[in-house]
Amino acid sequence: MLNVAVIGAGRIGRVHARSVLAHPGTRLALVADASPVAAREVAESAGTRWTDQVDDVFADDQVDAVVVASPTPFHVDHIVAGVASGKAVLTEKPVDLDLRRVDACLEQIRGSEHRVMVGFNRRFDAGIQEIRQRVLAGDVGEVEQVVVTSRDPSPPSPEYIASSGGIFRDMTIHDLDMVRFLVGEVATVQATGHQLDPVTGDHHGAVLVLTARSGALATIVNSRHNASGYDQRVEVVGPRGALSQANHRPTAVSYSSAEFSDRQRPWVNFFLERYAQAYAAELDAFVRAVRTGEAPSPGIADGRAALLLADCAVRSAATGRAVAVEELDPATATAVAPTTAGGQQ
Amino acid sequence: MLNVAVIGAGRIGRVHARSVLAHPGTRLALVADASPVAAREVAESAGTRWTDQVDDVFADDQVDAVVVASPTPFHVDHIVAGVASGKAVLTEKPVDLDLRRVDACLEQIRGSEHRVMVGFNRRFDAGIQEIRQRVLAGDVGEVEQVVVTSRDPSPPSPEYIASSGGIFRDMTIHDLDMVRFLVGEVATVQATGHQLDPVTGDHHGAVLVLTARSGALATIVNSRHNASGYDQRVEVVGPRGALSQANHRPTAVSYSSAEFSDRQRPWVNFFLERYAQAYAAELDAFVRAVRTGEAPSPGIADGRAALLLADCAVRSAATGRAVAVEELDPATATAVAPTTAGGQQ
Amino acid sequence: MLNVAVIGAGRIGRVHARSVLAHPGTRLALVADASPVAAREVAESAGTRWTDQVDDVFADDQVDAVVVASPTPFHVDHIVAGVASGKAVLTEKPVDLDLRRVDACLEQIRGSEHRVMVGFNRRFDAGIQEIRQRVLAGDVGEVEQVVVTSRDPSPPSPEYIASSGGIFRDMTIHDLDMVRFLVGEVATVQATGHQLDPVTGDHHGAVLVLTARSGALATIVNSRHNASGYDQRVEVVGPRGALSQANHRPTAVSYSSAEFSDRQRPWVNFFLERYAQAYAAELDAFVRAVRTGEAPSPGIADGRAALLLADCAVRSAATGRAVAVEELDPATATAVAPTTAGGQQ
Amino acid sequence: MLNVAVIGAGRIGRVHARSVLAHPGTRLALVADASPVAAREVAESAGTRWTDQVDDVFADDQVDAVVVASPTPFHVDHIVAGVASGKAVLTEKPVDLDLRRVDACLEQIRGSEHRVMVGFNRRFDAGIQEIRQRVLAGDVGEVEQVVVTSRDPSPPSPEYIASSGGIFRDMTIHDLDMVRFLVGEVATVQATGHQLDPVTGDHHGAVLVLTARSGALATIVNSRHNASGYDQRVEVVGPRGALSQANHRPTAVSYSSAEFSDRQRPWVNFFLERYAQAYAAELDAFVRAVRTGEAPSPGIADGRAALLLADCAVRSAATGRAVAVEELDPATATAVAPTTAGGQQ
Repeated sequence: MLNVAVIGAGRIGRVHARSVLAHPGTRLALVADASPVAAREVAESAGTRWTDQVDDVFADDQVDAVVVASPTPFHVDHIVAGVASGKAVLTEKPVDLDLRRVDACLEQIRGSEHRVMVGFNRRFDAGIQEIRQRVLAGDVGEVEQVVVTSRDPSPPSPEYIASSGGIFRDMTIHDLDMVRFLVGEVATVQATGHQLDPVTGDHHGAVLVLTARSGALATIVNSRHNASGYDQRVEVVGPRGALSQANHRPTAVSYSSAEFSDRQRPWVNFFLERYAQAYAAELDAFVRAVRTGEAPSPGIADGRAALLLADCAVRSAATGRAVAVEELDPATATAVAPTTAGGQQ
Repeated sequence: MLNVAVIGAGRIGRVHARSVLAHPGTRLALVADASPVAAREVAESAGTRWTDQVDDVFADDQVDAVVVASPTPFHVDHIVAGVASGKAVLTEKPVDLDLRRVDACLEQIRGSEHRVMVGFNRRFDAGIQEIRQRVLAGDVGEVEQVVVTSRDPSPPSPEYIASSGGIFRDMTIHDLDMVRFLVGEVATVQATGHQLDPVTGDHHGAVLVLTARSGALATIVNSRHNASGYDQRVEVVGPRGALSQANHRPTAVSYSSAEFSDRQRPWVNFFLERYAQAYAAELDAFVRAVRTGEAPSPGIADGRAALLLADCAVRSAATGRAVAVEELDPATATAVAPTTAGGQQ
Repeated sequence: MLNVAVIGAGRIGRVHARSVLAHPGTRLALVADASPVAAREVAESAGTRWTDQVDDVFADDQVDAVVVASPTPFHVDHIVAGVASGKAVLTEKPVDLDLRRVDACLEQIRGSEHRVMVGFNRRFDAGIQEIRQRVLAGDVGEVEQVVVTSRDPSPPSPEYIASSGGIFRDMTIHDLDMVRFLVGEVATVQATGHQLDPVTGDHHGAVLVLTARSGALATIVNSRHNASGYDQRVEVVGPRGALSQANHRPTAVSYSSAEFSDRQRPWVNFFLERYAQAYAAELDAFVRAVRTGEAPSPGIADGRAALLLADCAVRSAATGRAVAVEELDPATATAVAPTTAGGQQ
Repeated sequence: MLNVAVIGAGRIGRVHARSVLAHPGTRLALVADASPVAAREVAESAGTRWTDQVDDVFADDQVDAVVVASPTPFHVDHIVAGVASGKAVLTEKPVDLDLRRVDACLEQIRGSEHRVMVGFNRRFDAGIQEIRQRVLAGDVGEVEQVVVTSRDPSPPSPEYIASSGGIFRDMTIHDLDMVRFLVGEVATVQATGHQLDPVTGDHHGAVLVLTARSGALATIVNSRHNASGYDQRVEVVGPRGALSQANHRPTAVSYSSAEFSDRQRPWVNFFLERYAQAYAAELDAFVRAVRTGEAPSPGIADGRAALLLADCAVRSAATGRAVAVEELDPATATAVAPTTAGGQQ
């Protein structure tokens, strides 16, 4: 039985707390939140302990693993402290909004990277798992094109957007990870934003085109709003065939009348409902990794890679040109920057 | 080039006239209708000759084949006269509403049955053809269950119904032929009517359960009306799988909004639109049969068999019990009637 | 918190035990099974007590409610004992295979009928709930036709079938309850079985046609086996429109290749997976009924009504004629039997 | 009755010849092709005259209208000669592969632009017509995103590709017209090609992102090959909803087995089958425009606009940056070129 503490008793923290409660191999040992009201509410409904001092988590010998669901600016601190105190860590995405802080985090946990998993929940969706396995089995042949459609039902508050890092780092980052999951490393990113919000200065919509090192071309279509609910589709095409994941609905009921046929209910509305199964499977993958000692996947390097692609998207949307990932990667930028600055893109 | 005359310039006669015009191997040689106005209208728009004397058709040496689209009470006379004058005949269903007249017709054309085809148009629908070929190829294994859903968009006029022979002989007869086409000969018929119309005394809806000699069980669900259009579905199930034909829509466009997802237009409204391809394929099969001298299928014996099943349905709906086909078949009834009358069904 | 005991630690008992564990308002207080091994296994994995003496359940003051998941022959005894000991009862269907025993049970619990719920789980399926609510809201108008397709993925063992009461009482009973749920009381039943198994003497397939008192016509298509999984569809049609529930699949992934398009995985395989949500909702409805003191629905009278329809189906399949429900109902049979025996059906 | 000549007796010329034959308001008066064999074959099967001298068409007083289905390099000459000889012209796309020749053509037919229609057949597809009408009716609100998926079943020959002007001018041009049809004029084009063919030097796949002047963002996903047939989908999204057109299949039959459910046949294979209805509707629109004297739509200006967008795509794919349409338009380029050359894109 793995004793798990959850840091953060907000919306996503509660999702993880419920997953921990429901998993047969985990025990919810502690809930931490700077707000004692929130921490207490979650802990009491689960019959467990709570604290408003996050350091209690790291000092607690009974805690084997930590789920980091705190606000994004605290993720790195909590990851580092978790690893330092010998605990396995499952952190919500993004690791941080600043690539340099992510790199600093990696520096600090060096040698223990295999103890940290990043919560790209969609990788654990049963449909996405099926697509990936079929792609690996050769059902479509060498992947040539991927199209990810990802539209939220409605935008978050302007306050949230203002501190979110923008659509590419906040929302698209899931789709960027999906592209890496399905076609591997990305070489160039081209992004076009639209529907600029005068209040937040952020785009409400965007389309990205990514060239993978494999030669595949991936397209991401994003919007912060969608009338009929949470639009989450993926299409993977190769010379032998195509795999596609359709949206989910609450029921399989359709309605026909004199005006129409086979009308169905709007899509399942948002990520908590749509990815309920994925969050549970994600926790299960984490638990198995902790038990076997193997590196969990996706790891913190995957979190870094997705953030780097988001940074490329920001740059591309601002300049109107495709951005080579190497250009913006601190690990490689010194060498390539002069060349690309010269416009030979 | 096959010179074809069309007898009957009503709705279905016009369908056949158009098919003859469009077929590369046929010429519309003559249009006959007791109404000179109707005959003339169809003939002139097609640039051909017309007559209001149907006997002109049979006397015309330039006519190779006749499409009988006259009112049902004239079918037998026109079939017999057509065959007698050496012409191939494609007749609309039903051959007649009275099985004895059909048998008399068969008697009169004995030896020339292969010159007459009966227009069960649905057999030529591309989807039904695909299902039949796959069934023959063993895709579902030995057929166990067939479900035919057949609902018209709206009922015909009370006048039409009054002379139609009732729902089983007028509407279900197509579905009865479909069952024979897919599972072969039928042994027993059970029929339950409902929605009895006080004006016409006919049922607006019915469900039939037929036991095939093969052991398969076929279900037919009928209604004279259906809000979302012409409901025409077929499902064939066996131990290895199932084949099903869905309804057709005018376009493949779907609409999603805040209230619903993937709403589509109502089904294609009625038989002229839904089976346009089938009418053309039916004529083509007739033309090929005339050319090769082979017996066309479905033949007049198929028309007789479907009518016999409809008679069984009438009896079953009136008595509340399953009716053995042998019971009502004049060819076998003498022997079996006393037994079944005794209630040992 | 409602303290619940589960009697029966077999397959369906375990489903209920898990539902009780997962429900926030219930506690699994005791597991009883004549097999101590089974009882212990379920209880220990749930961290609760167990017994191999079912009477312990009724004697236990800490138990508020009982889930009866014992073999069918014990249902009545356990219902009666549960009610007698002051506990609310949720019993698996069927109440019994013998209508007289059900009537005896009703006699014994007279005045406490509102303390017993019968587990027709499909009523609680989210899709069926949606259909019912829309029917009540008038979306299709007055219901005219219902078609229930219900095919199991594969037959149970011959031993099970031999003691099951036959396909109508064992399998169709769910569909009979569904028809009552959607169109109300049934007046006549016509049933045709096929695929008679030489070993068990039971039909592997059947089609039923039921006339509701409302005038609606309901069709049930059953099979003990289906190649592509658990086939569970419902269609409700009225003058204003149609509602239909499609099958469920494990994911929303489709696959297209050179040979086909949009191929999907087989249906969710069987009832535990297909109706997982329904079992949880059923328990929740039971808990709410116990709390409010209102009679749960479906109650034992619904269990009796479905069994009576199954008896009618057995009679109809044996005689080839439609059976009036009144004929076989002990409560009304005396009066109507002579008439129907005279053949005026 | 409109007397129509068809220039070009190749694949697409034969499509038009058939449409002219089938249309009740047109007569196929003459077929012209440099190959007398081809011209004769088409003309004789249609029972009309033929010539291998294209000038015969323009000199023929009995010809009212001309369908230009000659090889692309001859389009402009035939359009100009047709207009000069007083005939209405329906020309296949593209008008030419060189924008300057298109502009020269426009110059030569100045004042008679309303006599020329360009054959962007997809505009006349019933599904696309439905989408456009619903967009105009406000069903989705102000259009925000369009996604056009367009994949051919298999690539043309290397010889064809070599003279085709490349994927953007040959294949994407239809999708570029579709975007203009649905969201109006385009401001910028970003194109990314992949799957570079070493033989032809052309891309086999590409993704384009276009910013419309309205602010809408349109995405085009192209491939020269697709395993399951001709992939032709369109999605239009706005704040109130989404409209999407699915692929067409030969029948509505689906097949389920132990390994899968609802497998269907591959998509209708290519444009002649998929757009058969659209070609007929296109001719009908042309005939109506000729009769009323109104300018047909799409006109030659639409042909020019689509070609200009294709030129922008070529430039963008070569440079990796978004291209402003004004940059490459000879009509506006002088003014804007210096600025964009300065990199302020």
